[in-house]
Amino acid sequence: MSRIAYVNGRYLDQRLAEVNIEDRGYQFGDGIYEVVHLYQGRFIDADLHLDRLDRSLREIRLPSPMSRAALLHVLAEIARRNRVTEGLLYMQVTRGVAPREHAFPKRPVPPALVVTVKRIPPYPTDVDRWGAAAITQPDLRWARCDIKTVNLLPNCLARQAAREAGAIEAILYDPATDMVTEGAATSFWIVDEAGSIRARPLSQAILPGCTRAALLAELAAAGIPYQEREFSLAEMRRAREAFLTSATSFVKPITQIDGAPVGDGQVGPVVRRLFEIFARHVKGDLRNAA
Amino acid sequence: MSRIAYVNGRYLDQRLAEVNIEDRGYQFGDGIYEVVHLYQGRFIDADLHLDRLDRSLREIRLPSPMSRAALLHVLAEIARRNRVTEGLLYMQVTRGVAPREHAFPKRPVPPALVVTVKRIPPYPTDVDRWGAAAITQPDLRWARCDIKTVNLLPNCLARQAAREAGAIEAILYDPATDMVTEGAATSFWIVDEAGSIRARPLSQAILPGCTRAALLAELAAAGIPYQEREFSLAEMRRAREAFLTSATSFVKPITQIDGAPVGDGQVGPVVRRLFEIFARHVKGDLRNAA
Repeated sequence: MSRIAYVNGRYLDQRLAEVNIEDRGYQFGDGIYEVVHLYQGRFIDADLHLDRLDRSLREIRLPSPMSRAALLHVLAEIARRNRVTEGLLYMQVTRGVAPREHAFPKRPVPPALVVTVKRIPPYPTDVDRWGAAAITQPDLRWARCDIKTVNLLPNCLARQAAREAGAIEAILYDPATDMVTEGAATSFWIVDEAGSIRARPLSQAILPGCTRAALLAELAAAGIPYQEREFSLAEMRRAREAFLTSATSFVKPITQIDGAPVGDGQVGPVVRRLFEIFARHVKGDLRNAA
Repeated sequence: MSRIAYVNGRYLDQRLAEVNIEDRGYQFGDGIYEVVHLYQGRFIDADLHLDRLDRSLREIRLPSPMSRAALLHVLAEIARRNRVTEGLLYMQVTRGVAPREHAFPKRPVPPALVVTVKRIPPYPTDVDRWGAAAITQPDLRWARCDIKTVNLLPNCLARQAAREAGAIEAILYDPATDMVTEGAATSFWIVDEAGSIRARPLSQAILPGCTRAALLAELAAAGIPYQEREFSLAEMRRAREAFLTSATSFVKPITQIDGAPVGDGQVGPVVRRLFEIFARHVKGDLRNAA
């Protein structure tokens, strides 16, 4: 079965789903995106993702293409038409099609909206097999990484470097300070040498991760302490455990960084517990049912 | 007459010229571009632009879509089919169409090439009317501004801020040091309070401007001294004269910055001379004839 994509009001065979060459997403990366996990036909943390979409759009002054209710309808329709119940929904909003100039179109044009879905394997059950290796890379990105834009070339280059090193993610650090920011497309956490769960506090330097926020809320609800506090590359190298979070990674143990084991190189007890907590969050999250 | 665009081997009505939604230019800004000035049917500084295109492609490891001779043929053909002799040629190369993931496509796909042209007014003859106002904006861009990528959202936001302030360009500065980098889509120069022509030296912080390089070569040939030396916002505010260069601005006097006059607010003698020198460069540049 060929995949179906939503493009500006139409449901199209994805191989034929196209946008004009003067779509500002193509010429300037002038757009915003989100990825939502679909589990047993339900959208996971949909409110968090759609709130962040609204925020990103506001930050670059891009109008919403439609109401939240209408967007949720399109997301559900794309899942339904593609018969995907375990997948990733991708949505992208750009500033539409206009004669090329850097400033916004003088005559307002409607924003463009593209939605696709792709099937993914069943939710991971074996945390030991879910673990993976990462590398470190200098964070070369712009000063507003809190906005989820499609200006993703530095992220692509970092991910490619990771793949070529046999790793699944690049952990980025500020080359001026050696402080870790986040993964190329994930939030990055450690369990530090004192045993504290640590995530970098939100700022313009990192994306406000939706899975990060959902996990922090679960930790708070379970009475598990954590710290939102920056950490350096050196602290990371002394960490007992490390992990990523994202809508596509869930809680993913990182057992090796730059070829060296994290702790003893095995999935540790804290990450094991957080993996289970987040799995329950996904499997029990009926609040955002489609 | 509708415009004709070149898209991946075909010449199309530009309104119908489209790329797939999974073109990596659209989803990641994973692409490179160039703009070449067309004067009386001739490409100005074409070798500089095509050398820079090659360099940008190499820096992000994107294969060339075709030989230089073939690309020059497409450029000439787009100019001819659109009957444009005074215009701007736009070319964009992206990493092609592949299932969305940050790392490069696992199975190599051909790079995508789009070429368009737009008509522009005749070359300016009155330097006093060619002058304009600018504003300053913090430089929020990534760490590799020497690569001419389509990750241009920060440039767009800065240009939009300029337009809303009644200006034509945003002069960017490093907020950590207050040193000027360049314009949002131009090179920026001053004639400092001692009368020296100053351009920021090339580094990863600015684009190696082709018009900048051409003008520097003309200055050297004419025995006019200049300095490639950084300057601060404060030095800029004390400057006698200021100007931009680019393939679309040529030499453009900046007579007002952030609402304050540069020098006496009129086009000064140095910029007036450089405008004439560059006009001769454009009008006499037969080296790169199409």
